[in-house]
Amino acid sequence: MINIDRIRAETPAAARLAYLHNAGAALMPAPVVAAMKEHIDLESEIGGYAAADRECDRLDAVYGSVARLLNAAPDEIALVENATVAWQMAFYALPFRKGDRILTAEAEYAANYVAFLQIAKRTGATIDVVPSDASGELDIEALERMIDARVKLIAITWVPTNGGLVNPAAAVGKIARAHSIPYLLDACQAVGQMAVDVEAIGCDMLSATGRKFLRGPRGTGFLYVRRSLLQQLEPPMIDHFAAPWVSRDEYRLRDDARRFETWENNYAARLGLGAAVDYALDIGMGPIEQRCRLLADRLRSGLASIRGITIRDLGRTPGAIVSFTMEGHEADAVVRSAAAASITIGASDPSSTRIDAEIRALPPLVRASPHYYNTEAEIDRLIDHLASLAPR
Amino acid sequence: MINIDRIRAETPAAARLAYLHNAGAALMPAPVVAAMKEHIDLESEIGGYAAADRECDRLDAVYGSVARLLNAAPDEIALVENATVAWQMAFYALPFRKGDRILTAEAEYAANYVAFLQIAKRTGATIDVVPSDASGELDIEALERMIDARVKLIAITWVPTNGGLVNPAAAVGKIARAHSIPYLLDACQAVGQMAVDVEAIGCDMLSATGRKFLRGPRGTGFLYVRRSLLQQLEPPMIDHFAAPWVSRDEYRLRDDARRFETWENNYAARLGLGAAVDYALDIGMGPIEQRCRLLADRLRSGLASIRGITIRDLGRTPGAIVSFTMEGHEADAVVRSAAAASITIGASDPSSTRIDAEIRALPPLVRASPHYYNTEAEIDRLIDHLASLAPR
Repeated sequence: MINIDRIRAETPAAARLAYLHNAGAALMPAPVVAAMKEHIDLESEIGGYAAADRECDRLDAVYGSVARLLNAAPDEIALVENATVAWQMAFYALPFRKGDRILTAEAEYAANYVAFLQIAKRTGATIDVVPSDASGELDIEALERMIDARVKLIAITWVPTNGGLVNPAAAVGKIARAHSIPYLLDACQAVGQMAVDVEAIGCDMLSATGRKFLRGPRGTGFLYVRRSLLQQLEPPMIDHFAAPWVSRDEYRLRDDARRFETWENNYAARLGLGAAVDYALDIGMGPIEQRCRLLADRLRSGLASIRGITIRDLGRTPGAIVSFTMEGHEADAVVRSAAAASITIGASDPSSTRIDAEIRALPPLVRASPHYYNTEAEIDRLIDHLASLAPR
Repeated sequence: MINIDRIRAETPAAARLAYLHNAGAALMPAPVVAAMKEHIDLESEIGGYAAADRECDRLDAVYGSVARLLNAAPDEIALVENATVAWQMAFYALPFRKGDRILTAEAEYAANYVAFLQIAKRTGATIDVVPSDASGELDIEALERMIDARVKLIAITWVPTNGGLVNPAAAVGKIARAHSIPYLLDACQAVGQMAVDVEAIGCDMLSATGRKFLRGPRGTGFLYVRRSLLQQLEPPMIDHFAAPWVSRDEYRLRDDARRFETWENNYAARLGLGAAVDYALDIGMGPIEQRCRLLADRLRSGLASIRGITIRDLGRTPGAIVSFTMEGHEADAVVRSAAAASITIGASDPSSTRIDAEIRALPPLVRASPHYYNTEAEIDRLIDHLASLAPR
């Protein structure tokens, strides 16, 4: 069982705000804030290098924590500035040639899609979008039919930014493995919200952020790369940490996933990330996932009864991102009006998931994303607030 | 005049430590620490997105501060995770073909050199090292003689990591401009130590870090790109911030230098960087540079009189990095013994500047790097300590 009282006490802002914007950036629990501030203090007391030296065991332990979170090994983890850098270091390391195919899904995130476009322009590779099935999930049978020898990458977003959809990541993994196609999974909105097991999923690379459902600091992210693929990937850019300069004309890439890192880092943020992962693991990803769904479902039920609201979520078992539109109210106006009532929610623009948004003719969406530290009462506050905006 | 008392009061650790490791990571002044911790608090009070929104003016102002520091325009500045990422985003954006030449200097930093080697391997470009003159500086006449139509980049480190050398950055700039060759200057050890004026230098791209002489946070860096070059450079990797996704098959690169950034950032660290730049500008780069040289010269004079110490610095007007070896004492042992006496210094490994280290047959060097907040008494403490280690 989740000890909500303790958790809310460690999330002081929860006493003032109904914070339902965890798909943007969650509220950090006190141990995350403390880990960062204490390290900044240590840096100012003994200097940035000595501080990192003194905390080297705890800094090393962050790799172990992230590895446990993903059911991976520490040497398969790189800690980087954000999920985009994590994803980029993997994606741009892959060799593409003219005619190669990249398969992705309809709700792929803008950050990734523009990178596909850049590589397509640079190499002549093509981007093929796997259609969704009737539920809105990536259509596994369609994916299977699209596979041929030219497919050099399957890259999808597990939990798209613009609604409840949870793509069938493990079913995609089975197909990727059966055809020995590298599989890059954007798990930005999944980590911290649901149990993530790279073995069960069968992905070869996975990128994620610290600041969303993981409740870590802004400016943190990580990359998982399966050991068997690691040695074949030369990072798109290197420094002497990724690839020590071993003789005048030679560098040697590190053996582990840290070949995707650079030498200099924000160690305070790293310790904050480690504290966030440990905090989630301590509560347990099973109970977290269960409570996220419970609160999101309660929200969807409440929204369904409000006149003028259309829920825009997709998929068979939607996750903790609840998206909707409200007749006569722009998304931004709904967000502002909620903020005035001390309810924090967000909006999702069509340009974040352009293909899905065009197919579904989506306007900007209101996006409410509860987390385990929220209460039923907070969900109901949002429902009541929206009901008060609706026509009677 | 520098108000040393005020500055030392704002650098609390200076009361306990003779901190002479500013070429590693300097001690942050109190306003830098406060800027970071206050933003982390704000994030935990209202959430990471709302905190960035509320501080958007101050966050914007960081670009202006960095631009003032460099005599550039705010739209020529990108804020990134560290100096390496800054340098990489510029370097890897340049198109190289077989036979193209990259000119660099003997003391080029390892991080940059391995990137040269990677691009050489990838494209068939060659790396040519400009020899040093008798003083140890990059030989400007030799550089001039080496220019031909195949030279597609001049990339040097202004102040190398392993000693007092200050390369003639502006003289290199004149040659680069005369031949219209892009000029990338690694100013990692220069910013915060000396006045930097990209117009006077004539560089097209400049990379730097926050944590060294600028006294900013770890995990911060920035890139300057001259406006006239900016529009010709496609970043090596992009996301939807660098290049908004404007229609299904099209992205549009930003017009400004922020095309080299990614969307997500550590805003606390950015505000710390801004505070560090403002702090330096408030004191004035002229007085800072003058005092750095004064203290470094005092240190060199003292070292010269200690038996068994060989100063390893190069150049006509050495800067604030003082490097030396001590007969019968490994560099690391000297660093540890100083630490035990509350004197913080560092060491520089030959693999950091392999070509220079090979030419000069350098072992690991002891590296002491005073800053304006240091006192003559602290310099003398280090001299006395080293003298106590020396044979009588």
